[in-house]
Amino acid sequence: MPARVSIITVADAAGVSTATVSQALRGIGRMSDETRQHVLAVAEQLGYRPNALAQRFVRQRADAIGFLLDGEPDQAFHNPFWFEIINGAHAVCAEHDMTLVLLHPAMVAQKGGFDVLFQEKRIDGLLFPDTPEHADWRRTAMKSSCPFVALGQPQVPSPHNWVDIDNQAAGRFMYHQIAARGYRRPVFISGPADIGIGTDRWRGFQAAARASRPGTLGARLCAAASTTNAARETTVSALQAEPDCDVIVTSHNIIAQGALQAAQQLGHRVPEDLGLITFDSYPLAAHSDPRVAAVDMDMYGLGSNAVRVLLEILHRPDGHWPVQHMLHLYRMQDGESLPHR
Amino acid sequence: MPARVSIITVADAAGVSTATVSQALRGIGRMSDETRQHVLAVAEQLGYRPNALAQRFVRQRADAIGFLLDGEPDQAFHNPFWFEIINGAHAVCAEHDMTLVLLHPAMVAQKGGFDVLFQEKRIDGLLFPDTPEHADWRRTAMKSSCPFVALGQPQVPSPHNWVDIDNQAAGRFMYHQIAARGYRRPVFISGPADIGIGTDRWRGFQAAARASRPGTLGARLCAAASTTNAARETTVSALQAEPDCDVIVTSHNIIAQGALQAAQQLGHRVPEDLGLITFDSYPLAAHSDPRVAAVDMDMYGLGSNAVRVLLEILHRPDGHWPVQHMLHLYRMQDGESLPHR
Repeated sequence: MPARVSIITVADAAGVSTATVSQALRGIGRMSDETRQHVLAVAEQLGYRPNALAQRFVRQRADAIGFLLDGEPDQAFHNPFWFEIINGAHAVCAEHDMTLVLLHPAMVAQKGGFDVLFQEKRIDGLLFPDTPEHADWRRTAMKSSCPFVALGQPQVPSPHNWVDIDNQAAGRFMYHQIAARGYRRPVFISGPADIGIGTDRWRGFQAAARASRPGTLGARLCAAASTTNAARETTVSALQAEPDCDVIVTSHNIIAQGALQAAQQLGHRVPEDLGLITFDSYPLAAHSDPRVAAVDMDMYGLGSNAVRVLLEILHRPDGHWPVQHMLHLYRMQDGESLPHR
Repeated sequence: MPARVSIITVADAAGVSTATVSQALRGIGRMSDETRQHVLAVAEQLGYRPNALAQRFVRQRADAIGFLLDGEPDQAFHNPFWFEIINGAHAVCAEHDMTLVLLHPAMVAQKGGFDVLFQEKRIDGLLFPDTPEHADWRRTAMKSSCPFVALGQPQVPSPHNWVDIDNQAAGRFMYHQIAARGYRRPVFISGPADIGIGTDRWRGFQAAARASRPGTLGARLCAAASTTNAARETTVSALQAEPDCDVIVTSHNIIAQGALQAAQQLGHRVPEDLGLITFDSYPLAAHSDPRVAAVDMDMYGLGSNAVRVLLEILHRPDGHWPVQHMLHLYRMQDGESLPHR
């Protein structure tokens, strides 16, 4: 590797001070355009590369956003969307020449919390998924001085920054998709009633059904657990209780798998006798037989929007109102299980 | 936020020079134990936090490892293991107080390549998945001066650092698992023959079968594509050609889904008439009916081992032999589809 070209080498070759080189490179300071162009030309000719560590030290900015991750092994499919979220966040960071730093809760705790990471200039801001099982992350973040954006709407109104996908709107969208394809008697199979996302999706679905055709709306049945087996049992009961049902809507892929097994168990053909559609698209839907249609969520878009909001906050003065964005990031993904009637 | 406690504040309060404070904090320099303890006590009392940017600038180390990612939306399930790999890498970085920086190929290209990121002290080293579709990543990394570890064994011997899971050994392990459960006439259904992982798994499987029971070994059938539909068609042909087959081994979950559908289509009950087992465990196997047994790969372990190897390389002098590790990171995951006969 050739010797490193430093700011001193550039200053010597250009016949100016290191301060002038530094200012010329950063586009600041008082100097003639001619001088600035000369310095930039010399720097380029010599193959000068700025030292990112030096630049960050001078600016006292980490140029880094922390992303808090659970860090347990084998969890990719416990929350199959984290990779998409991180990927979207990462792409926007890259656009802005910033780093996405993955943070481990144990490491954050050992360091003394987000505040310390922020004060040590390891991160300029923070993202984390705000889920019921990680509510303490939000509480800790709110007490810290580190700017942050939570991914996920809190259960009760709260004065902090968050972005989320609007699951009620996605539920309304779902209703209109099945109505447009000619289905009239939906049954909605969800996981346990206390799962916020499923409940929001059902509320939107129900509201759209009520607004479209007063007096007739789908039934909702909640499985005891978010497992294939629980969903199969619940769907069997639902199909026996609602023999006129013409389409099953499920709150996610695992429930859809159970619903498909229940239909087969009862001798219903999907889609000839019964339509089937789910929220979210991951391999269970795409590789089932028949392929299950889905209202899919753009988790990549959620991650990239979260970074955009955080960058906006970092550039704003103190004392702002919280930024709370409900994003409409969903789309229809057709599948063999939901033909037009 | 209270005013930041600097190294100068600590020096003033302790009655020593800033150089002494700096050396005391870093555990270097000549001074009495008494002085060192005094400085550390004062620093702690004042709540001094080292400035990570300053420390990194002084040491000229980024304390960061780059991880090259494709960055396309919706790819989580094209390679469902990346999240696990990243998670494992991230955990070991955190243990060593290092950052895992996600890198976007477009961003790397715009910067002028890995060498520039390394020379600008943005990363100390690099990890990337070495797959056929990203062979140019390896070529570029090999030309750069940035230390790196590729995740994935190259197709032909090559003098660079890599780690991989030993798929031939996993294939042998698979054979012994089914033999131990009493199965005697396996058929192995894989995706296209040119997929390296599937071919390695088959070679190991075949070698173990040949060594265990000379003259009798499983047949292999390659589906035209790695899709459920192609696997279903291939499995139907296989079961018609090999009516004595007592267990189907598939090279991954999507193929397993097709094989399960084929068995049902031909009226075979799984597992009563026919056992089924797959390599890899992701939701298709866990949520199928019956639940499909698997030889699962520890991708979290692959990621964490890759970082360990990279850290080892960073601490070694130049001119070393390449580190090329085949890891034995797989295990049996029981499922309803493979009972003991």
